[in-house]
Amino acid sequence: MTVNREIHLASRPQGWPTADNFRLVETEVPTPGPGQLVVRNQLMSVDPYMRGRMDDVKSYVPPFALDAPLDGGALGEVVAGEADGIAPGDTVLHGLGWREYALVDARGARRVDPDLAPVSAYLGVLGMTGLTAYAGLLDVAAMKPGETVFVSGAAGAVGSMVGQIAKLKGAGRVVGSAGSAAKVERLRVLGFDAAFDYHDGPVRDSLRAAAPDGIDVYFDNVGGEHLEAAIGAMRLHGRAAICGMIAQYNETEPPAAPRNLALVIGKRLTLRGFLVGDHGHLRDRFVQEVAGWLREGKLSYDETVVDGIARAPEAFLGLLRGENLGKMLVRL
Amino acid sequence: MTVNREIHLASRPQGWPTADNFRLVETEVPTPGPGQLVVRNQLMSVDPYMRGRMDDVKSYVPPFALDAPLDGGALGEVVAGEADGIAPGDTVLHGLGWREYALVDARGARRVDPDLAPVSAYLGVLGMTGLTAYAGLLDVAAMKPGETVFVSGAAGAVGSMVGQIAKLKGAGRVVGSAGSAAKVERLRVLGFDAAFDYHDGPVRDSLRAAAPDGIDVYFDNVGGEHLEAAIGAMRLHGRAAICGMIAQYNETEPPAAPRNLALVIGKRLTLRGFLVGDHGHLRDRFVQEVAGWLREGKLSYDETVVDGIARAPEAFLGLLRGENLGKMLVRL
Repeated sequence: MTVNREIHLASRPQGWPTADNFRLVETEVPTPGPGQLVVRNQLMSVDPYMRGRMDDVKSYVPPFALDAPLDGGALGEVVAGEADGIAPGDTVLHGLGWREYALVDARGARRVDPDLAPVSAYLGVLGMTGLTAYAGLLDVAAMKPGETVFVSGAAGAVGSMVGQIAKLKGAGRVVGSAGSAAKVERLRVLGFDAAFDYHDGPVRDSLRAAAPDGIDVYFDNVGGEHLEAAIGAMRLHGRAAICGMIAQYNETEPPAAPRNLALVIGKRLTLRGFLVGDHGHLRDRFVQEVAGWLREGKLSYDETVVDGIARAPEAFLGLLRGENLGKMLVRL
Repeated sequence: MTVNREIHLASRPQGWPTADNFRLVETEVPTPGPGQLVVRNQLMSVDPYMRGRMDDVKSYVPPFALDAPLDGGALGEVVAGEADGIAPGDTVLHGLGWREYALVDARGARRVDPDLAPVSAYLGVLGMTGLTAYAGLLDVAAMKPGETVFVSGAAGAVGSMVGQIAKLKGAGRVVGSAGSAAKVERLRVLGFDAAFDYHDGPVRDSLRAAAPDGIDVYFDNVGGEHLEAAIGAMRLHGRAAICGMIAQYNETEPPAAPRNLALVIGKRLTLRGFLVGDHGHLRDRFVQEVAGWLREGKLSYDETVVDGIARAPEAFLGLLRGENLGKMLVRL
């Protein structure tokens, strides 16, 4: 009998999580019941939002349970079970990552075509990550051609899509911030008009230098000082799509910034938080458009891959520290 | 020759303004040139936004100049000049308050009918104040029937309109906060479902008691702790119309709140700052609807009137301290 290994939440982090908050547990490979599939996971996603689920607070998704496996986006091959037109040998996308073998309800699995694109794309550029960028920029922030767009966390999976999609959709100027010189260099290669390392000085000053005439749209992955700088740089009727605030997920004290929120009045700004789940109506248009850009070589994406279920916690901690370029994945 | 008295800005306030920041100056009554009118002001408005104009910072309107008269909404009788169909004897609304006689460009004046409504209404419920409430609630926050609405500064000129219009438009529950027991009592008479004095405890606790199932719309006149409490109480897809942040206009340090801004993501909230000037397209509908409610006795408004140009600074300072019920006016 094959052993299944999975990662449990051993304890809830106080502030920054550590390896001690996770536990590798061996279990049995499950047996499928009616309507169920057993999937041998090949890739799993680690995402910043998972940090919030480690706290015991009510949110849009329930918190992770202690002494139970974590979950999240994953992709693998069906090895047992048959339902809803899915059969062994199929590659499916589902929500039960952090384990080598997943017992999945067939209705919660979606078959993907491994010949159409590298399967990892379905967890990134062609998946939730890509749709988050697409929906946030075009639907939530309603970017118009000619506008100046600023995105933080720009070398991450979502941020790098935001900047490139903005250019492809006619943005006048696209500015990105990231956490290292190498990432900044990568953003220039991806076609950003300007990019800066937020360690190099106050974000406000770097942003002013990169966008001297101000910005119209801010795509926020970071919060805190970045959001404050963006509000300060906004032009009349600017919009911020608030996707994440990774700068504060591990803070035990609430952030002081943005301290300039009163500017939303005189500048008539709109700040709007969003989750990709509300924007499913864009999925068909998104897949068609993004797949086209990929085929034509107009859109590039990076992946940072860590090997083995035992290193999944390490991949997640690295993501929180910004050690990834593009999408952070664990190969199982 | 008649003397004209006007209020100049003598110095820029640091923090809370004092009487020393103002100076009463005697000048001559002006003589109209072509296209100009001389208006003997009868009423002038003092408004919270004027505090921002006393600072020397770039904003949506230029700062007040030192050693020059302040300005703002006013209303009076034309005593000299004739242009654009306006003649002596007419009552006009214009933007040059803080003085007994105003030399007004006829294109910047609007004739009002003193027989149709008490003239003070044109500075309040039927004027910018009323339109601010109407546009912010219905256009910016897009309140829908059945929703729960929370408004701060609810006994003020704008806030009391917001609450009443919300009820007239079918809000399920309307909650207001104000700064005294007498104001809270007045809100109950005006038809608010619940009201509290924000001095009585943390706003968060008072709001939770007043709206145990949460709120859908927040009309912000106050900022700071009120905004933080509102974000905390918001239900999914809640909207805040940010009209003012009077709690912080006189603070020399930027406010720490709202410290819970990250909640905009999971709850998919929209925070939107606005100025009434962007919503002029609603004016006809607004006047028709509000004038109808007034005629039918469905809408009440309060006024706090101070007499004499010399007391205009006192009226303004009282407004910042919340000493007014409803619209604060100076009768000249």
